[in-house]
Amino acid sequence: MKDFEELDLKVKSWFSEAQNFIFKSLKNKINVSTKTDRTDLVTNVDKEVEKFYISKIKESYPDAKILGEESKKNISHQDEGLLFIIDPIDGTMNFVKQQDDFASMIAIYYNGKPVLGYILEVMKNELYWGGPAFKKVFCNDIQLEQPQDKSLIEGLVQICFPFVLKNEFNAREIAAQSSGLRMYGSAGIEYIKVLEGKCVGYLSKLRTWDYAAGNILANTLGLSVVNIDENKNDVLSSKVVLISTKKTKNEILSIINDNLNS
Amino acid sequence: MKDFEELDLKVKSWFSEAQNFIFKSLKNKINVSTKTDRTDLVTNVDKEVEKFYISKIKESYPDAKILGEESKKNISHQDEGLLFIIDPIDGTMNFVKQQDDFASMIAIYYNGKPVLGYILEVMKNELYWGGPAFKKVFCNDIQLEQPQDKSLIEGLVQICFPFVLKNEFNAREIAAQSSGLRMYGSAGIEYIKVLEGKCVGYLSKLRTWDYAAGNILANTLGLSVVNIDENKNDVLSSKVVLISTKKTKNEILSIINDNLNS
Repeated sequence: MKDFEELDLKVKSWFSEAQNFIFKSLKNKINVSTKTDRTDLVTNVDKEVEKFYISKIKESYPDAKILGEESKKNISHQDEGLLFIIDPIDGTMNFVKQQDDFASMIAIYYNGKPVLGYILEVMKNELYWGGPAFKKVFCNDIQLEQPQDKSLIEGLVQICFPFVLKNEFNAREIAAQSSGLRMYGSAGIEYIKVLEGKCVGYLSKLRTWDYAAGNILANTLGLSVVNIDENKNDVLSSKVVLISTKKTKNEILSIINDNLNS
Repeated sequence: MKDFEELDLKVKSWFSEAQNFIFKSLKNKINVSTKTDRTDLVTNVDKEVEKFYISKIKESYPDAKILGEESKKNISHQDEGLLFIIDPIDGTMNFVKQQDDFASMIAIYYNGKPVLGYILEVMKNELYWGGPAFKKVFCNDIQLEQPQDKSLIEGLVQICFPFVLKNEFNAREIAAQSSGLRMYGSAGIEYIKVLEGKCVGYLSKLRTWDYAAGNILANTLGLSVVNIDENKNDVLSSKVVLISTKKTKNEILSIINDNLNS
């Protein structure tokens, strides 16, 4: 049995240092380059923050496995011991264009099981943290309650732009049946909206570092977390993920299936 | 010639009082009702804040004309003297569902000409204000600089959901050519994103109280403000408004025209 209290305090101190580094970096010129396409960005800050987290993890937990967005390795969630999944800057486009609405995230697995998740809303200085290790979720020092089990029609929904553009997963009908569509451009920010009960759902195609921390927090809060597409066991491939209230999950799955069957 | 300094100080004191009232109201149950359809909401707070602004205006400027979202009257911008255009809570859906990401706005005309605009980002306590009366725009005490004249491809763009849903104005192509689509659900918040240079444009169908303050601030900052649809002189009818950098304006108009001509 791991000492999760100690691990938790360490991770929080890393976030605090990383946040100071990010604030300082915003005063200097950011070096931006593209990855898979013109809207898939990486900056020197992404790389440096990831390097910083990795150095801190190696210092305290030399045997831990690490999966980072900017240093991908195909690692299994099933491995023994500690696994850290890192997204140094989630919402890099917002970071570059807005210097706002981006997150830094870490998920921790132990012996193949999720134990702790962290989403730092950097500019608001709000750290969402918790997981099975504590059976609770907090925003800074305030414990979050399970969001009300609201229907799609009662709530705001978040769907990634590619799904709306191509109407994949009947996305436009899902949005039309909700109280409104929102797009914030950062998985971390969009998970937070669901954790806070401000939106009833979030449907997007995500990679492991985008959803790992958020899924841990959402599960711990009693929200529904489902993969919509075929079963993909490769930790590096994208998955279509729906995080929502339970009622909204049933409604969205039914809208998606209506489309498939029509 | 009016004393705009005094008027400005008064308006700021009204916002300060209104904000305190809104903060208090968030602790109580909000009474929500619908207007034109199920997503067009009004609350007791919208109504009470509008009533408060009107009472303050009448106390100091008994001859002023007033146009409020919740107390519509068909008033001409050309009227002599002072005209106040009020949106007590802009983004009422966000106010109700998120208790976040909403604004309170006032626009002031004098002898038919815009003089001052105010957008209060209520939860962040950020007041965007200025206009021709001062030839400057501020966020609280900090003067805003004119945003860089960025192209659509270089920036994030905001488009209202109905246009994307029905692909009106070739909205999907506009979004696809940008760095990313964002939807925040409040005209005030979306104007602020353009004023701050965080987004290169905002395209939406808006009514007078949604765009009056934002247009004054955008014009003063050297941004482009255009009506896309046919000329409507009725102050109460909706207009399709594009607020953007100059480069982005030309590109978006060209994408819209491509569609009309194809």
